[in-house]
Amino acid sequence: MTTTVPHIPLAQTPGSRAMARLDALRAFTDVPGQIHRLYLSASHRQAADAVAAMMRDAGCDSVGVDALGAVVGRYEGTEPGQPALLIGSHIDTVKDAGAYDGTLGVIAAIAVIEELARTGERLPFAIEALAFGDEENVRFPSNLSSSRALAGKFDVDTLDGRDEDGVTLRDALVAFGGDPAGIPALARDPAGVLAYVEVHIEQGPVLEVRDLPVGVVSAINGASRRRLAVTGEAGHAGTVPMGLRRDALSAAAEMALAIERLGAAQADTVATVGRFVVEPGAVNVIPGRVQFTLDARSPDDAVRMRLVERCEAECRAIAARRGVTLAVEPFYDASAAPCDPAIRAGLAAAVAGRQIPVLELPSGAGHDAMAMADLCPVGMLFVRCKGGISHNPAESMTEADADAAIAVLLDFVRAFRR
Amino acid sequence: MTTTVPHIPLAQTPGSRAMARLDALRAFTDVPGQIHRLYLSASHRQAADAVAAMMRDAGCDSVGVDALGAVVGRYEGTEPGQPALLIGSHIDTVKDAGAYDGTLGVIAAIAVIEELARTGERLPFAIEALAFGDEENVRFPSNLSSSRALAGKFDVDTLDGRDEDGVTLRDALVAFGGDPAGIPALARDPAGVLAYVEVHIEQGPVLEVRDLPVGVVSAINGASRRRLAVTGEAGHAGTVPMGLRRDALSAAAEMALAIERLGAAQADTVATVGRFVVEPGAVNVIPGRVQFTLDARSPDDAVRMRLVERCEAECRAIAARRGVTLAVEPFYDASAAPCDPAIRAGLAAAVAGRQIPVLELPSGAGHDAMAMADLCPVGMLFVRCKGGISHNPAESMTEADADAAIAVLLDFVRAFRR
Repeated sequence: MTTTVPHIPLAQTPGSRAMARLDALRAFTDVPGQIHRLYLSASHRQAADAVAAMMRDAGCDSVGVDALGAVVGRYEGTEPGQPALLIGSHIDTVKDAGAYDGTLGVIAAIAVIEELARTGERLPFAIEALAFGDEENVRFPSNLSSSRALAGKFDVDTLDGRDEDGVTLRDALVAFGGDPAGIPALARDPAGVLAYVEVHIEQGPVLEVRDLPVGVVSAINGASRRRLAVTGEAGHAGTVPMGLRRDALSAAAEMALAIERLGAAQADTVATVGRFVVEPGAVNVIPGRVQFTLDARSPDDAVRMRLVERCEAECRAIAARRGVTLAVEPFYDASAAPCDPAIRAGLAAAVAGRQIPVLELPSGAGHDAMAMADLCPVGMLFVRCKGGISHNPAESMTEADADAAIAVLLDFVRAFRR
Repeated sequence: MTTTVPHIPLAQTPGSRAMARLDALRAFTDVPGQIHRLYLSASHRQAADAVAAMMRDAGCDSVGVDALGAVVGRYEGTEPGQPALLIGSHIDTVKDAGAYDGTLGVIAAIAVIEELARTGERLPFAIEALAFGDEENVRFPSNLSSSRALAGKFDVDTLDGRDEDGVTLRDALVAFGGDPAGIPALARDPAGVLAYVEVHIEQGPVLEVRDLPVGVVSAINGASRRRLAVTGEAGHAGTVPMGLRRDALSAAAEMALAIERLGAAQADTVATVGRFVVEPGAVNVIPGRVQFTLDARSPDDAVRMRLVERCEAECRAIAARRGVTLAVEPFYDASAAPCDPAIRAGLAAAVAGRQIPVLELPSGAGHDAMAMADLCPVGMLFVRCKGGISHNPAESMTEADADAAIAVLLDFVRAFRR
């Protein structure tokens, strides 16, 4: 299959060319009228081919699609075969997605290579642009497969995972044109990798509120999730006096407010009650049971675990005081991935060099950089997005911010030393 | 159809005979294995015939089933045709009900007549035992039809209301053996009615907590209901810092706690958030919208309206402080029905005369007495029930409490003067 990619005239700015490429990738979707590009789908294959064409067009010396569907474009340094600075993100999307989550980081990597290649500029290391394919954790019960594979951490059991149609990841990979047998060989020799840098929309409102185009990521937050169940006593809303109630909703409401307060008590932590189901849920019945979830995140694992412990302790105290029972069930714990201090410093210097105030902020969402941290030092640059909205067709960012991000990334790359 | 009613030997106490009659009525159900006796169903007809037989057996001078299915047993006074003291409750039930809600009041009225009739005792007024049929508001979109009809307040439009099988109340009434055309004539001449007294299980835990067999009802609470909708902003649970959130759940939780506090701030008021639905309701998404209900009750209408106003005002203040929007929609307002001071005093004197501490308490639930208040002075006597549980097969009360209730009611009746 031949994929047509629009020619992007060089007479534009890097940001305008990036926006044109991002627009071009909108066309690759499993669901017409949406951006809906699940890992290893037909539209993922089309998008991978289009990105490969963009990489060649930008001046990469070699371009390929690897055994797990990641697109890799290499721009050699002053000498062929030098260790590489990896720059990338992902091109798979959630269902009914926006145009920037993931793809921006891939297009930014291409833009950097394009800027170097247009004048034949060579650095004392190679640059590889990477377009991963399994970041959104939507189609299969796998996550970050293609970046984990580079770090040598791919779990072969995930090949047996099935999508909602019963198709295994293995079969989908073969249909895509990938090679299950070739996965172990994807593991990179650390000696050949200098670092991994990822540009990504913030997916939050901080940069917009601070009026900044970009920010330097300090760490990718760890996350802990708990299921909590409060059991009180259901009763007639008219006949049970207030003093004789064991209202599960009142208790859970107090717990939700305690969790909010504890999450806000420290910089850079968040704590969210997202699911909250009240039973029996009738206008004239005192609630007897509430099931809710806690999601706590922090760039520091010890801080996160203390936060979770404090939330649990306060909830238990509220339950005891109100005479209701509380059950707590952990179901998810992921460690934080701190960004490399030298890369953070390099990105901060590049931001400052463009007269942009330097803001360091944690990433509340997970990224391929988490998996790449097992291979090499990692760093991330966040780009302002409208309203902090992501995973939504309303996802939006400006050409000016794309220009700023590419300029910062290019300055960082030129100043980068192994 | 002949209905067999077990013979209740007089050698027992009034309470044990009442418990035996209540047990006998369990058999009349639309759903075997449950007590499930909806208005105008086949089992309601059987129960009405059984109650009529019990009334005759107890010594009523005349017994009939009226045009709307209510059973009326009259025990004349010293002279035939004297104005009557009405005593009763209902024999319809909710689905999968208990054995005492409603039926206890009917059986207590029969017990009083039986005690008078066994020695031929005649009072200077007649007594009528009433077994109403449409109190639970389960089958048709009607409520208190048979007691409203006695007060001349029956709404003929309700005859066109349909049950979930599409059967109109009119057709069901005809099938039952009732007479739609005879309804207007059910309206009683106030000159022939002295008062209405109803014995009912409390349906709440107050008497059990106070260790009292009976209590005097001060008023049947009015009730107001509101639908509230909080709209904040949904967002990523990892990427939106606590200080930039407009979390609809946190706002609604604060509102629920304010409502609880305001409901508890005065004696005899209750305020309940029973329905509480959180959207989108995912572990990793900040809630964007919560819809919940407020149910506020008080024996005093002005107090209830002030309570609702305060709840709304506090909720609006919370919404404003948190930057979320709040919509409030009233959907139900029912006035309180105060019990007649003279009847309250008479019941209190009877309670005290049996060496039982007198507790006056409001009724949080609605009763036929609400409808009868449009015809004549009303009063109610509450009887302790286990755990405050009603509308449930676990509904339970003791024979000793039935004895106490009948003794108090009989003392009240003997001391009653028009």
